[in-house]
Amino acid sequence: MLEHEDENDSSCCSIDGAGRKSHHSDKVKNSLISRLNRIEGQVRGIKGLIEKDTYCDDVLNQISSVQSALNGVGKLLLEHHLKSCVIERIQEGDSEVLTELMVTMNKLIK
Amino acid sequence: MLEHEDENDSSCCSIDGAGRKSHHSDKVKNSLISRLNRIEGQVRGIKGLIEKDTYCDDVLNQISSVQSALNGVGKLLLEHHLKSCVIERIQEGDSEVLTELMVTMNKLIK
Amino acid sequence: MLEHEDENDSSCCSIDGAGRKSHHSDKVKNSLISRLNRIEGQVRGIKGLIEKDTYCDDVLNQISSVQSALNGVGKLLLEHHLKSCVIERIQEGDSEVLTELMVTMNKLIK
Amino acid sequence: MLEHEDENDSSCCSIDGAGRKSHHSDKVKNSLISRLNRIEGQVRGIKGLIEKDTYCDDVLNQISSVQSALNGVGKLLLEHHLKSCVIERIQEGDSEVLTELMVTMNKLIK
Repeated sequence: MLEHEDENDSSCCSIDGAGRKSHHSDKVKNSLISRLNRIEGQVRGIKGLIEKDTYCDDVLNQISSVQSALNGVGKLLLEHHLKSCVIERIQEGDSEVLTELMVTMNKLIK
Repeated sequence: MLEHEDENDSSCCSIDGAGRKSHHSDKVKNSLISRLNRIEGQVRGIKGLIEKDTYCDDVLNQISSVQSALNGVGKLLLEHHLKSCVIERIQEGDSEVLTELMVTMNKLIK
Repeated sequence: MLEHEDENDSSCCSIDGAGRKSHHSDKVKNSLISRLNRIEGQVRGIKGLIEKDTYCDDVLNQISSVQSALNGVGKLLLEHHLKSCVIERIQEGDSEVLTELMVTMNKLIK
Repeated sequence: MLEHEDENDSSCCSIDGAGRKSHHSDKVKNSLISRLNRIEGQVRGIKGLIEKDTYCDDVLNQISSVQSALNGVGKLLLEHHLKSCVIERIQEGDSEVLTELMVTMNKLIK
Protein backbone atom coordinates (compact mmCIF):
# COMPACT_ATOMS: atom_id res chain seq x y z
CA MET A 1 0.00 0.00 0.00
CA LEU A 2 1.34 3.44 -0.84
CA GLU A 3 2.15 5.69 2.08
CA HIS A 4 -0.27 8.57 1.31
CA GLU A 5 0.58 11.42 3.64
CA ASP A 6 0.52 12.11 7.35
CA GLU A 7 -2.55 10.52 8.89
CA ASN A 8 -4.12 13.88 9.91
CA ASP A 9 -3.82 15.26 6.44
CA SER A 10 -5.10 12.38 4.42
CA SER A 11 -8.23 11.14 2.74
CA CYS A 12 -9.35 7.74 1.60
CA CYS A 13 -12.03 6.28 -0.56
CA SER A 14 -14.65 3.58 -0.06
CA ILE A 15 -17.62 2.12 -1.90
CA ASP A 16 -20.90 0.89 -0.51
CA GLY A 17 -24.40 0.21 -1.74
CA ALA A 18 -24.99 3.94 -2.21
CA GLY A 19 -21.88 4.39 -4.35
CA ARG A 20 -18.41 5.80 -3.76
CA LYS A 21 -17.51 7.86 -0.70
CA SER A 22 -14.49 10.05 0.05
CA HIS A 23 -13.48 10.18 3.71
CA HIS A 24 -11.32 13.19 4.56
CA SER A 25 -9.51 13.59 7.85
CA ASP A 26 -11.07 16.16 10.22
CA LYS A 27 -8.21 18.51 9.40
CA VAL A 28 -8.87 18.36 5.63
CA LYS A 29 -12.65 18.52 6.09
CA ASN A 30 -12.40 21.55 8.39
CA SER A 31 -10.11 23.32 5.95
CA LEU A 32 -12.51 22.75 3.06
CA ILE A 33 -15.57 23.73 5.11
CA SER A 34 -14.02 26.92 6.52
CA ARG A 35 -12.96 28.03 3.04
CA LEU A 36 -16.48 27.38 1.77
CA ASN A 37 -17.93 29.31 4.71
CA ARG A 38 -15.82 32.31 3.73
CA ILE A 39 -16.90 31.98 0.09
CA GLU A 40 -20.55 31.78 1.14
CA GLY A 41 -20.05 34.97 3.15
CA GLN A 42 -18.35 36.68 0.20
CA VAL A 43 -21.24 35.77 -2.11
CA ARG A 44 -23.69 37.21 0.44
CA GLY A 45 -21.45 40.28 0.61
CA ILE A 46 -21.61 40.75 -3.16
CA LYS A 47 -25.41 40.65 -3.00
CA GLY A 48 -25.25 43.43 -0.40
CA LEU A 49 -22.95 45.50 -2.61
CA ILE A 50 -25.37 45.25 -5.52
CA GLU A 51 -28.35 46.08 -3.32
CA LYS A 52 -26.51 49.25 -2.17
CA ASP A 53 -25.71 50.28 -5.80
CA THR A 54 -21.99 49.79 -5.31
CA TYR A 55 -19.88 50.84 -8.32
CA CYS A 56 -19.70 47.93 -10.79
CA ASP A 57 -15.92 47.84 -10.94
CA ASP A 58 -15.69 47.26 -7.18
CA VAL A 59 -18.24 44.41 -7.44
CA LEU A 60 -16.39 42.85 -10.39
CA ASN A 61 -13.22 42.77 -8.28
CA GLN A 62 -15.11 40.99 -5.50
CA ILE A 63 -16.41 38.42 -7.97
CA SER A 64 -12.87 37.80 -9.18
CA SER A 65 -11.69 37.19 -5.63
CA VAL A 66 -14.49 34.67 -4.99
CA GLN A 67 -13.48 32.88 -8.22
CA SER A 68 -9.91 32.61 -6.96
CA ALA A 69 -11.08 31.32 -3.57
CA LEU A 70 -13.32 28.73 -5.26
CA ASN A 71 -10.42 27.74 -7.48
CA GLY A 72 -8.38 27.15 -4.33
CA VAL A 73 -11.02 24.82 -2.90
CA GLY A 74 -11.16 22.89 -6.17
CA LYS A 75 -7.40 22.45 -6.26
CA LEU A 76 -7.24 21.35 -2.61
CA LEU A 77 -9.98 18.79 -3.22
CA LEU A 78 -8.34 17.62 -6.46
CA GLU A 79 -5.07 17.03 -4.62
CA HIS A 80 -6.76 14.88 -1.98
CA HIS A 81 -8.72 13.04 -4.66
CA LEU A 82 -5.51 12.22 -6.51
CA LYS A 83 -3.74 11.06 -3.35
CA SER A 84 -6.59 8.88 -2.15
CA CYS A 85 -9.27 7.68 -4.54
CA VAL A 86 -7.11 7.83 -7.67
CA ILE A 87 -4.16 5.94 -6.16
CA GLU A 88 -6.38 3.37 -4.44
CA ARG A 89 -8.50 2.63 -7.54
CA ILE A 90 -5.42 2.34 -9.78
CA GLN A 91 -3.86 -0.07 -7.33
CA GLU A 92 -7.07 -2.09 -7.40
CA GLY A 93 -6.61 -2.30 -11.19
CA ASP A 94 -9.45 0.13 -11.92
CA SER A 95 -8.13 2.58 -14.55
CA GLU A 96 -11.69 3.84 -15.12
CA VAL A 97 -10.91 6.43 -12.45
CA LEU A 98 -8.60 8.20 -14.92
CA THR A 99 -11.26 8.43 -17.62
CA GLU A 100 -13.60 9.88 -14.97
CA LEU A 101 -10.85 12.25 -13.82
CA MET A 102 -10.24 13.47 -17.39
CA VAL A 103 -13.92 14.35 -17.82
CA THR A 104 -13.69 16.49 -14.67
CA MET A 105 -10.33 18.01 -15.73
CA ASN A 106 -11.90 19.11 -19.01
CA LYS A 107 -14.38 21.20 -16.99
CA LEU A 108 -11.80 22.63 -14.58
CA ILE A 109 -9.24 23.50 -17.30
CA LYS A 110 -11.01 26.18 -19.33
CA MET B 1 -26.61 61.21 -25.35
CA LEU B 2 -26.25 57.61 -26.43
CA GLU B 3 -29.38 55.49 -26.36
CA HIS B 4 -28.25 52.73 -23.92
CA GLU B 5 -30.90 50.06 -23.94
CA ASP B 6 -34.53 49.68 -23.00
CA GLU B 7 -35.27 51.57 -19.77
CA ASN B 8 -36.12 48.40 -17.77
CA ASP B 9 -32.91 46.75 -18.71
CA SER B 10 -30.47 49.56 -18.12
CA SER B 11 -28.07 50.85 -15.53
CA CYS B 12 -26.50 54.22 -14.95
CA CYS B 13 -23.70 55.66 -12.94
CA SER B 14 -23.44 58.54 -10.49
CA ILE B 15 -20.87 60.03 -8.14
CA ASP B 16 -21.40 61.58 -4.73
CA GLY B 17 -19.34 62.36 -1.67
CA ALA B 18 -19.01 58.66 -0.90
CA GLY B 19 -17.66 57.85 -4.37
CA ARG B 20 -19.11 56.28 -7.50
CA LYS B 21 -22.43 54.42 -7.54
CA SER B 22 -23.97 52.10 -10.13
CA HIS B 23 -27.76 52.18 -10.30
CA HIS B 24 -29.26 49.13 -11.97
CA SER B 25 -32.91 48.86 -12.99
CA ASP B 26 -35.00 46.60 -10.75
CA LYS B 27 -35.00 44.00 -13.52
CA VAL B 28 -31.17 43.92 -13.73
CA LYS B 29 -30.77 44.03 -9.94
CA ASN B 30 -33.26 41.17 -9.44
CA SER B 31 -31.51 39.08 -12.08
CA LEU B 32 -28.12 39.57 -10.42
CA ILE B 33 -29.48 38.93 -6.91
CA SER B 34 -31.41 35.79 -7.88
CA ARG B 35 -28.32 34.35 -9.59
CA LEU B 36 -26.26 35.10 -6.50
CA ASN B 37 -28.91 33.49 -4.28
CA ARG B 38 -28.62 30.32 -6.34
CA ILE B 39 -24.81 30.42 -6.11
CA GLU B 40 -24.99 30.92 -2.34
CA GLY B 41 -27.26 27.86 -2.14
CA GLN B 42 -24.87 25.85 -4.32
CA VAL B 43 -21.92 26.74 -2.08
CA ARG B 44 -23.93 25.66 0.97
CA GLY B 45 -24.79 22.47 -0.93
CA ILE B 46 -21.11 21.74 -1.57
CA LYS B 47 -20.42 22.07 2.16
CA GLY B 48 -23.14 19.50 2.79
CA LEU B 49 -21.65 17.13 0.22
CA ILE B 50 -18.25 17.31 1.92
CA GLU B 51 -19.76 16.83 5.37
CA LYS B 52 -21.51 13.65 4.07
CA ASP B 53 -18.21 12.30 2.56
CA THR B 54 -19.50 12.60 -0.98
CA TYR B 55 -17.12 11.20 -3.62
CA CYS B 56 -14.58 13.89 -4.56
CA ASP B 57 -15.28 13.75 -8.29
CA ASP B 58 -18.96 14.60 -7.71
CA VAL B 59 -17.95 17.56 -5.52
CA LEU B 60 -15.41 18.78 -8.09
CA ASN B 61 -18.16 18.82 -10.70
CA GLN B 62 -20.34 20.92 -8.40
CA ILE B 63 -17.48 23.37 -7.87
CA SER B 64 -17.06 23.67 -11.63
CA SER B 65 -20.74 24.48 -12.04
CA VAL B 66 -20.58 27.20 -9.38
CA GLN B 67 -17.57 28.67 -11.21
CA SER B 68 -19.57 28.83 -14.42
CA ALA B 69 -22.54 30.45 -12.63
CA LEU B 70 -20.24 33.02 -11.03
CA ASN B 71 -18.67 33.68 -14.43
CA GLY B 72 -22.15 34.38 -15.75
CA VAL B 73 -22.80 36.97 -13.05
CA GLY B 74 -19.47 38.64 -13.79
CA LYS B 75 -20.21 38.85 -17.48
CA LEU B 76 -23.73 40.22 -16.92
CA LEU B 77 -22.36 42.88 -14.59
CA LEU B 78 -19.50 43.70 -17.00
CA GLU B 79 -21.98 44.24 -19.81
CA HIS B 80 -24.04 46.67 -17.74
CA HIS B 81 -20.89 48.41 -16.57
CA LEU B 82 -19.75 48.91 -20.18
CA LYS B 83 -23.16 50.20 -21.28
CA SER B 84 -23.55 52.62 -18.40
CA CYS B 85 -20.53 53.80 -16.41
CA VAL B 86 -17.99 53.28 -19.21
CA ILE B 87 -20.01 55.10 -21.88
CA GLU B 88 -21.02 57.91 -19.53
CA ARG B 89 -17.49 58.55 -18.23
CA ILE B 90 -16.00 58.48 -21.73
CA GLN B 91 -18.59 60.97 -22.90
CA GLU B 92 -17.65 63.16 -19.95
CA GLY B 93 -14.07 63.06 -21.25
CA ASP B 94 -12.87 60.77 -18.46
CA SER B 95 -10.78 58.04 -20.13
CA GLU B 96 -9.49 56.97 -16.69
CA VAL B 97 -12.42 54.54 -16.66
CA LEU B 98 -10.64 52.44 -19.32
CA THR B 99 -7.44 52.17 -17.31
CA GLU B 100 -9.57 51.09 -14.35
CA LEU B 101 -11.46 48.62 -16.59
CA MET B 102 -8.20 47.12 -17.88
CA VAL B 103 -7.00 46.44 -14.32
CA THR B 104 -10.23 44.53 -13.69
CA MET B 105 -10.06 42.73 -17.06
CA ASN B 106 -6.58 41.50 -16.18
CA LYS B 107 -8.10 39.70 -13.18
CA LEU B 108 -11.11 38.31 -15.04
CA ILE B 109 -9.09 37.08 -18.08
CA LYS B 110 -6.91 34.35 -16.61
CA MET C 1 -10.95 64.68 -28.31
CA LEU C 2 -9.67 62.57 -25.43
CA GLU C 3 -5.95 62.59 -24.86
CA HIS C 4 -5.21 58.88 -25.42
CA GLU C 5 -1.63 58.30 -24.37
CA ASP C 6 1.87 59.32 -25.48
CA GLU C 7 1.99 59.47 -29.27
CA ASN C 8 4.53 56.61 -29.56
CA ASP C 9 2.46 54.30 -27.50
CA SER C 10 -0.93 54.83 -29.05
CA SER C 11 -3.24 53.29 -31.57
CA CYS C 12 -6.17 54.66 -33.50
CA CYS C 13 -8.99 53.34 -35.54
CA SER C 14 -10.26 54.09 -39.05
CA ILE C 15 -12.86 52.75 -41.46
CA ASP C 16 -12.65 52.44 -45.21
CA GLY C 17 -14.37 50.51 -47.95
CA ALA C 18 -12.77 47.29 -46.72
CA GLY C 19 -14.03 47.76 -43.17
CA ARG C 20 -12.45 48.87 -39.89
CA LYS C 21 -8.70 49.17 -39.41
CA SER C 22 -6.60 49.52 -36.25
CA HIS C 23 -3.42 51.52 -36.68
CA HIS C 24 -0.87 50.91 -33.94
CA SER C 25 2.24 52.98 -33.44
CA ASP C 26 5.47 51.26 -34.52
CA LYS C 27 6.34 50.78 -30.87
CA VAL C 28 3.06 48.93 -30.12
CA LYS C 29 3.20 46.95 -33.36
CA ASN C 30 6.80 45.85 -32.72
CA SER C 31 5.93 44.80 -29.19
CA LEU C 32 3.01 42.68 -30.39
CA ILE C 33 5.00 41.15 -33.26
CA SER C 34 8.05 40.31 -31.14
CA ARG C 35 5.84 38.61 -28.52
CA LEU C 36 4.14 36.61 -31.27
CA ASN C 37 7.52 35.66 -32.74
CA ARG C 38 8.52 34.23 -29.37
CA ILE C 39 5.23 32.35 -29.07
CA GLU C 40 5.68 30.93 -32.58
CA GLY C 41 9.14 29.75 -31.55
CA GLN C 42 7.76 28.21 -28.35
CA VAL C 43 5.10 26.30 -30.30
CA ARG C 44 7.79 25.00 -32.65
CA GLY C 45 9.82 24.06 -29.55
CA ILE C 46 6.91 22.06 -28.13
CA LYS C 47 6.68 20.12 -31.40
CA GLY C 48 10.37 19.29 -31.03
CA LEU C 49 9.86 18.13 -27.44
CA ILE C 50 7.10 15.76 -28.52
CA GLU C 51 9.13 14.44 -31.45
CA LYS C 52 11.98 13.65 -29.00
CA ASP C 53 9.60 11.81 -26.58
CA THR C 54 10.06 14.42 -23.87
CA TYR C 55 8.31 13.54 -20.58
CA CYS C 56 4.68 14.73 -20.76
CA ASP C 57 4.83 16.81 -17.59
CA ASP C 58 7.66 18.93 -19.01
CA VAL C 59 5.68 19.48 -22.23
CA LEU C 60 2.52 20.38 -20.27
CA ASN C 61 4.50 23.05 -18.45
CA GLN C 62 5.69 24.49 -21.78
CA ILE C 63 2.10 24.59 -23.03
CA SER C 64 1.05 26.47 -19.90
CA SER C 65 3.77 29.05 -20.47
CA VAL C 66 2.69 29.59 -24.09
CA GLN C 67 -0.89 30.09 -22.84
CA SER C 68 0.32 32.78 -20.44
CA ALA C 69 2.33 34.50 -23.19
CA LEU C 70 -0.68 34.43 -25.52
CA ASN C 71 -2.82 35.81 -22.71
CA GLY C 72 -0.36 38.67 -22.41
CA VAL C 73 -0.67 39.51 -26.11
CA GLY C 74 -4.47 39.44 -25.84
CA LYS C 75 -4.46 41.80 -22.87
CA LEU C 76 -2.00 44.22 -24.54
CA LEU C 77 -4.15 44.31 -27.66
CA LEU C 78 -7.34 44.70 -25.61
CA GLU C 79 -5.86 47.69 -23.81
CA HIS C 80 -4.98 49.42 -27.07
CA HIS C 81 -8.39 48.55 -28.50
CA LEU C 82 -10.11 50.14 -25.49
CA LYS C 83 -7.96 53.26 -25.65
CA SER C 84 -8.40 53.78 -29.38
CA CYS C 85 -11.28 52.19 -31.25
CA VAL C 86 -13.62 51.94 -28.25
CA ILE C 87 -13.13 55.54 -27.15
CA GLU C 88 -13.32 56.92 -30.69
CA ARG C 89 -16.48 55.00 -31.62
CA ILE C 90 -18.23 55.97 -28.36
CA GLN C 91 -17.38 59.59 -28.97
CA GLU C 92 -18.84 59.26 -32.46
CA GLY C 93 -22.06 58.08 -30.79
CA ASP C 94 -21.58 54.46 -31.89
CA SER C 95 -22.30 52.29 -28.82
CA GLU C 96 -22.40 49.19 -31.05
CA VAL C 97 -18.68 48.85 -30.26
CA LEU C 98 -19.57 47.79 -26.71
CA THR C 99 -21.92 45.03 -27.85
CA GLU C 100 -19.12 43.83 -30.14
CA LEU C 101 -16.62 44.10 -27.27
CA MET C 102 -18.88 42.06 -24.95
CA VAL C 103 -19.07 39.22 -27.49
CA THR C 104 -15.25 39.12 -27.54
CA MET C 105 -15.02 39.42 -23.74
CA ASN C 106 -17.28 36.39 -23.39
CA LYS C 107 -14.67 34.36 -25.29
CA LEU C 108 -11.66 35.75 -23.42
CA ILE C 109 -13.23 35.38 -19.94
CA LYS C 110 -13.57 31.64 -19.54
CA MET D 1 -0.73 -4.76 -15.58
CA LEU D 2 -3.61 -2.44 -16.39
CA GLU D 3 -5.03 -2.59 -19.87
CA HIS D 4 -4.39 1.04 -20.95
CA GLU D 5 -6.08 1.47 -24.31
CA ASP D 6 -5.79 0.15 -27.86
CA GLU D 7 -2.16 -0.24 -28.88
CA ASN D 8 -2.33 2.41 -31.64
CA ASP D 9 -3.72 4.99 -29.33
CA SER D 10 -1.46 4.55 -26.36
CA SER D 11 1.60 6.03 -24.76
CA CYS D 12 4.05 4.69 -22.25
CA CYS D 13 6.76 6.03 -20.04
CA SER D 14 10.40 5.11 -19.52
CA ILE D 15 13.41 6.42 -17.61
CA ASP D 16 17.04 6.46 -18.64
CA GLY D 17 20.20 8.30 -17.71
CA ALA D 18 18.83 11.49 -19.26
CA GLY D 19 15.62 11.35 -17.22
CA ARG D 20 12.03 10.37 -17.96
CA LYS D 21 10.70 9.89 -21.48
CA SER D 22 7.15 9.64 -22.81
CA HIS D 23 6.71 7.42 -25.86
CA HIS D 24 3.52 8.09 -27.78
CA SER D 25 2.20 5.87 -30.54
CA ASP D 26 2.64 7.30 -34.06
CA LYS D 27 -1.08 8.01 -34.12
CA VAL D 28 -0.96 10.09 -30.92
CA LYS D 29 2.27 11.83 -31.92
CA ASN D 30 0.92 12.74 -35.36
CA SER D 31 -2.27 14.10 -33.82
CA LEU D 32 -0.32 16.30 -31.40
CA ILE D 33 2.12 17.48 -34.08
CA SER D 34 -0.57 18.30 -36.65
CA ARG D 35 -2.51 20.32 -34.06
CA LEU D 36 0.66 22.20 -33.15
CA ASN D 37 1.39 22.84 -36.84
CA ARG D 38 -2.04 24.45 -37.18
CA ILE D 39 -1.46 26.54 -34.06
CA GLU D 40 1.92 27.66 -35.37
CA GLY D 41 0.22 28.71 -38.60
CA GLN D 42 -2.49 30.57 -36.68
CA VAL D 43 0.13 32.49 -34.66
CA ARG D 44 1.88 33.44 -37.91
CA GLY D 45 -1.51 34.47 -39.27
CA ILE D 46 -2.13 36.76 -36.27
CA LYS D 47 1.21 38.45 -36.91
CA GLY D 48 0.09 39.09 -40.49
CA LEU D 49 -3.22 40.55 -39.30
CA ILE D 50 -1.41 43.00 -37.03
CA GLU D 51 1.06 43.96 -39.73
CA LYS D 52 -1.91 44.77 -42.03
CA ASP D 53 -3.62 46.92 -39.33
CA THR D 54 -6.50 44.50 -38.98
CA TYR D 55 -9.27 45.72 -36.63
CA CYS D 56 -8.34 44.75 -33.04
CA ASP D 57 -11.58 42.91 -32.31
CA ASP D 58 -10.97 40.52 -35.24
CA VAL D 59 -7.44 39.85 -33.97
CA LEU D 60 -8.68 39.28 -30.41
CA ASN D 61 -11.06 36.64 -31.73
CA GLN D 62 -8.19 34.90 -33.50
CA ILE D 63 -6.16 34.92 -30.28
CA SER D 64 -9.09 33.35 -28.43
CA SER D 65 -9.32 30.57 -31.02
CA VAL D 66 -5.58 29.82 -30.70
CA GLN D 67 -6.03 29.63 -26.91
CA SER D 68 -8.80 27.06 -27.35
CA ALA D 69 -6.67 25.03 -29.78
CA LEU D 70 -3.73 25.10 -27.37
CA ASN D 71 -6.06 24.07 -24.56
CA GLY D 72 -7.08 21.09 -26.67
CA VAL D 73 -3.46 20.00 -27.12
CA GLY D 74 -2.88 20.31 -23.37
CA LYS D 75 -5.90 18.18 -22.55
CA LEU D 76 -4.99 15.51 -25.12
CA LEU D 77 -1.47 15.31 -23.71
CA LEU D 78 -2.77 15.27 -20.12
CA GLU D 79 -5.04 12.34 -20.94
CA HIS D 80 -2.16 10.33 -22.38
CA HIS D 81 0.03 11.29 -19.44
CA LEU D 82 -2.60 10.04 -16.99
CA LYS D 83 -3.10 6.79 -18.88
CA SER D 84 0.59 6.03 -19.23
CA CYS D 85 3.15 7.65 -16.96
CA VAL D 86 0.75 8.25 -14.04
CA ILE D 87 -0.64 4.71 -14.00
CA GLU D 88 2.75 3.08 -14.51
CA ARG D 89 4.50 5.11 -11.77
CA ILE D 90 1.67 4.50 -9.29
CA GLN D 91 1.85 0.79 -9.96
CA GLU D 92 5.59 0.94 -9.33
CA GLY D 93 4.75 2.45 -5.92
CA ASP D 94 5.93 5.93 -6.90
CA SER D 95 3.24 8.34 -5.69
CA GLU D 96 5.61 11.28 -6.32
CA VAL D 97 4.04 11.44 -9.79
CA LEU D 98 0.85 12.83 -8.23
CA THR D 99 2.65 15.62 -6.40
CA GLU D 100 4.34 16.49 -9.71
CA LEU D 101 0.97 16.30 -11.50
CA MET D 102 -0.65 18.62 -8.94
CA VAL D 103 2.04 21.28 -9.52
CA THR D 104 1.24 21.15 -13.25
CA MET D 105 -2.54 21.14 -12.63
CA ASN D 106 -2.17 24.30 -10.57
CA LYS D 107 -0.80 26.03 -13.68
CA LEU D 108 -3.37 24.62 -16.09
CA ILE D 109 -6.41 25.32 -13.85
CA LYS D 110 -6.52 29.11 -13.73
